[in-house]
Amino acid sequence: MRFWSIVLAGAWAVSMMAAETVPQWGIYEIVLNGPTNGNPFIDVRLSAVFDNGSKKVEVAGFYDGDGVYRIRFMPDEQGVWRYETEANRWPLTRQVGSFEVGPPAKGRHGPVRVHNTYHFAYADGTLYYPIGTTIYNWLQAPDDWQELTLNTLSNAPFNKVRFLVTPQDVDFRKSVPATLFPFEGRPRNEWDFTRFSPPFFRKLEQRIAQLGDLGIEADVILFHPYGKTYGFDTMDPETDERYIRYIVARLSAYHNVWWSLANEYDFLRTKTEADWHRFFQIVQEADPYGHLRSIHNGYDIYNNSLPWVTHASIQNGSAVTDPGRAVLYRDVWRKPVVFDEVKYEGTENYRWGQLTPEEMTHRMWAGLVAGTYVQHGECYLHADDTWLSYGGVLRGESWKRIAFLRQILEDAPPGGLDPVDKWQDWDMGGRSGVYYLKYFGWAAPTNWTFELPREGLQEGMQFRVDVIDTWNMTITPVDGVFTLKRKDRYSFVDGNGRAVKLPGKPGIAVRIRNVGGSGPGSRGMAPVEPF
Amino acid sequence: MRFWSIVLAGAWAVSMMAAETVPQWGIYEIVLNGPTNGNPFIDVRLSAVFDNGSKKVEVAGFYDGDGVYRIRFMPDEQGVWRYETEANRWPLTRQVGSFEVGPPAKGRHGPVRVHNTYHFAYADGTLYYPIGTTIYNWLQAPDDWQELTLNTLSNAPFNKVRFLVTPQDVDFRKSVPATLFPFEGRPRNEWDFTRFSPPFFRKLEQRIAQLGDLGIEADVILFHPYGKTYGFDTMDPETDERYIRYIVARLSAYHNVWWSLANEYDFLRTKTEADWHRFFQIVQEADPYGHLRSIHNGYDIYNNSLPWVTHASIQNGSAVTDPGRAVLYRDVWRKPVVFDEVKYEGTENYRWGQLTPEEMTHRMWAGLVAGTYVQHGECYLHADDTWLSYGGVLRGESWKRIAFLRQILEDAPPGGLDPVDKWQDWDMGGRSGVYYLKYFGWAAPTNWTFELPREGLQEGMQFRVDVIDTWNMTITPVDGVFTLKRKDRYSFVDGNGRAVKLPGKPGIAVRIRNVGGSGPGSRGMAPVEPF
Repeated sequence: MRFWSIVLAGAWAVSMMAAETVPQWGIYEIVLNGPTNGNPFIDVRLSAVFDNGSKKVEVAGFYDGDGVYRIRFMPDEQGVWRYETEANRWPLTRQVGSFEVGPPAKGRHGPVRVHNTYHFAYADGTLYYPIGTTIYNWLQAPDDWQELTLNTLSNAPFNKVRFLVTPQDVDFRKSVPATLFPFEGRPRNEWDFTRFSPPFFRKLEQRIAQLGDLGIEADVILFHPYGKTYGFDTMDPETDERYIRYIVARLSAYHNVWWSLANEYDFLRTKTEADWHRFFQIVQEADPYGHLRSIHNGYDIYNNSLPWVTHASIQNGSAVTDPGRAVLYRDVWRKPVVFDEVKYEGTENYRWGQLTPEEMTHRMWAGLVAGTYVQHGECYLHADDTWLSYGGVLRGESWKRIAFLRQILEDAPPGGLDPVDKWQDWDMGGRSGVYYLKYFGWAAPTNWTFELPREGLQEGMQFRVDVIDTWNMTITPVDGVFTLKRKDRYSFVDGNGRAVKLPGKPGIAVRIRNVGGSGPGSRGMAPVEPF
Repeated sequence: MRFWSIVLAGAWAVSMMAAETVPQWGIYEIVLNGPTNGNPFIDVRLSAVFDNGSKKVEVAGFYDGDGVYRIRFMPDEQGVWRYETEANRWPLTRQVGSFEVGPPAKGRHGPVRVHNTYHFAYADGTLYYPIGTTIYNWLQAPDDWQELTLNTLSNAPFNKVRFLVTPQDVDFRKSVPATLFPFEGRPRNEWDFTRFSPPFFRKLEQRIAQLGDLGIEADVILFHPYGKTYGFDTMDPETDERYIRYIVARLSAYHNVWWSLANEYDFLRTKTEADWHRFFQIVQEADPYGHLRSIHNGYDIYNNSLPWVTHASIQNGSAVTDPGRAVLYRDVWRKPVVFDEVKYEGTENYRWGQLTPEEMTHRMWAGLVAGTYVQHGECYLHADDTWLSYGGVLRGESWKRIAFLRQILEDAPPGGLDPVDKWQDWDMGGRSGVYYLKYFGWAAPTNWTFELPREGLQEGMQFRVDVIDTWNMTITPVDGVFTLKRKDRYSFVDGNGRAVKLPGKPGIAVRIRNVGGSGPGSRGMAPVEPF
């Protein structure tokens, strides 16, 4: 990602830079020189209001060390924007300027938003299917390892990476300590919590920008319970808030940032649920762009119905073994459900890391036909590290099948996949009347009688069927067309009673696509007599 | 149920009655004569404050027609209570009195409360397992049919009945119209919504009292979407509120009342979610005893995390086919989950009423081992009526197995059944270290290797095992004692590796009871390293 930044020595510098063009959803950065006395992290308040004539956006600035202050802005509309800074120090206040925002850079779609209640789309309307993986401590690994991880990601199917901001107190390969920390001071627990360490955040930003260049969302985890001797989990309330505000000020202009308040939030034993409510509200208020906000649970699920939660980020070790389970959370929160942790593929000593690649692949599909999103994780131990912990190289098998899955999703119609008849055909997701995926899971049927739930259907509509082998990554079209005839009150079958031959092994799905006629129904409304 | 009521002609009557003794959780009723002019339902406000020296309880009165006003009070503490009335009419205000409250009547335990987060107990601490059935319109059937229903219930296992307050516009046996309605006027839709019809409510009260005498909770449904031509689903906001307050004033002194705000609330198309929030709050504020409050969904689940919901009342056609599904709602709301509608046993034309008795029984057990409560329903059509609609006679098979199930529950230890290792052994519920039920569902194993999740266990502890046939209603003790030996990080097995022989058919459970030694663990806390 390139920055469009200007350094203002004073107000006269503004007109000089005004002609520069920034792409929509890029970053425009104001750089100001200011005071170095006292503690600028604490003492100086800086912000700017950006105005394009139809709306104003207030953005907090931050101190980046060495007398340099920055204000980063992500314009979400094209055209001319003007700004004016405000600060409690003379050199930083009343700076004004303007710049032009042009079309987005190639391949950029803006931040991801909730779409159609249970799904996601980029700001430009393009559907976004979260196909994520977790690499908790990759930013704690040596630089060349981080580069290796990025290289792996550039050849992998993932469009979201979930990771910790602050390091854990376990060294890479048990011997290479982390070198960058968010605060001045030294490990362990000799921090000056009133002074941030800009190099730490610059590295974080560099990596987020590189993920963005790869088309990958950065699900950044603000707190975690794993660094007890570092003490980032037991900071006082003011430090917590300053830490959150500093991160949000630095990162929110990156289009691909998601806020994950915590990993296993309920295992931070010194925080209460009220603390998490407060943290959410701080993020919500401080982030002018409304990036996605969630929180990942350990044992106790957070109340995801609260208004500041945009989507559920769930750990559950069994919910996606079966689409009939996965679907249940959707109705509860009426928000997208992302299963960020469903146990991991690997050969860990712990049972949370012992999924076979087949089971990991199965869980992705099971969640998908239930209208939810299951994320990948992998922990094959190799030279004292795992993909889950530090990234590096993918050593599993499921990620290849996930690439195949992603291809299928990208061919699916807009709107996202929803359960079609949720209490009856829980292994089928799609868009009624248009497109269906039916997934047989661990069952190994040799035959499927063509049958679709009534919603959105009428007699005479025509469909084509493909048989998908989710493990061997094949798509086999079934000959001929299936023409609907009403079977009974609840469903339609093929007029000639046709069935589809299946290979009699696990991991098979069928894809059913409308190739003639649209039905009377529409999605989103329960039918009058749904049951 | 007997009433302890006094009729006050004036203040001088009070001392005369003061010696009377009311049982704890019985009803003390003040009866006052007052004005008949105007519209007493609208014009007269009446209440009383009851005071036992340590707390005051304010209770609304109501007009019962013919110049009679009543204030009903359910004392929840023994000893002397005093009261004073307040009203906006002279004859009704400043009436004072006192009475003595003695021990509860035999077999009475007080109102049911939430207990131990996911469970229920009576006010006296006795555990209450909801074993409910639904009889929507039984109060709309002729009187002798209602008596028949009560007689059936007196020989059935149910301790909760769920039913509609207002009639549906479908006549009993398609030919016997309802004769009592909550408002003055005539069907259909010629009501004076400003005047209640006391005979309707007296019948309702009589039946609730009779249910109480049978030890049955009355889950009264205030609104439903089924009476469109009667118009009780489309009353204006003031009428809705008056209706709620009148019912609460009349019924809340009955110890066995539960408030179900609606059946399929989301199918009342003219009400918004905000209306339901408001109704809940009215009930919560008007009911001085805090009877249980829930709302039953059609397609859209209400936000049961809201503070005025005491427990989830769920319709879901597939969630209890598998304990691994049923368990999911528990964590979401951290409240008791009652599956009030899971499809019904019967031979209906609709798929919601086609469960086999085996499947209904299975669902009860599946929900139970998941730490939730599944309620019965039955719809075998007989002479144009079904148990589900009007009561009468139970014609199914599952209810007998539910009696067997209830017996097993009554032998279980206090605290309620919780999942023991929720993401791993989802077919096992119990109290760790003490008592376990493992239910094999539709699987038909011939063998179960004795193995228990680690929580609350230590080596040397001894257990006995019974094999339960949930359909044939047999409990077969397994010879000998199982003595714990640690198997691995996660579980314990028998020291001699013993297994339990099973009959190789569906519907089998094992019960495992501690007969020697208590473990180091305790329930309610997640272990430090739970996964």
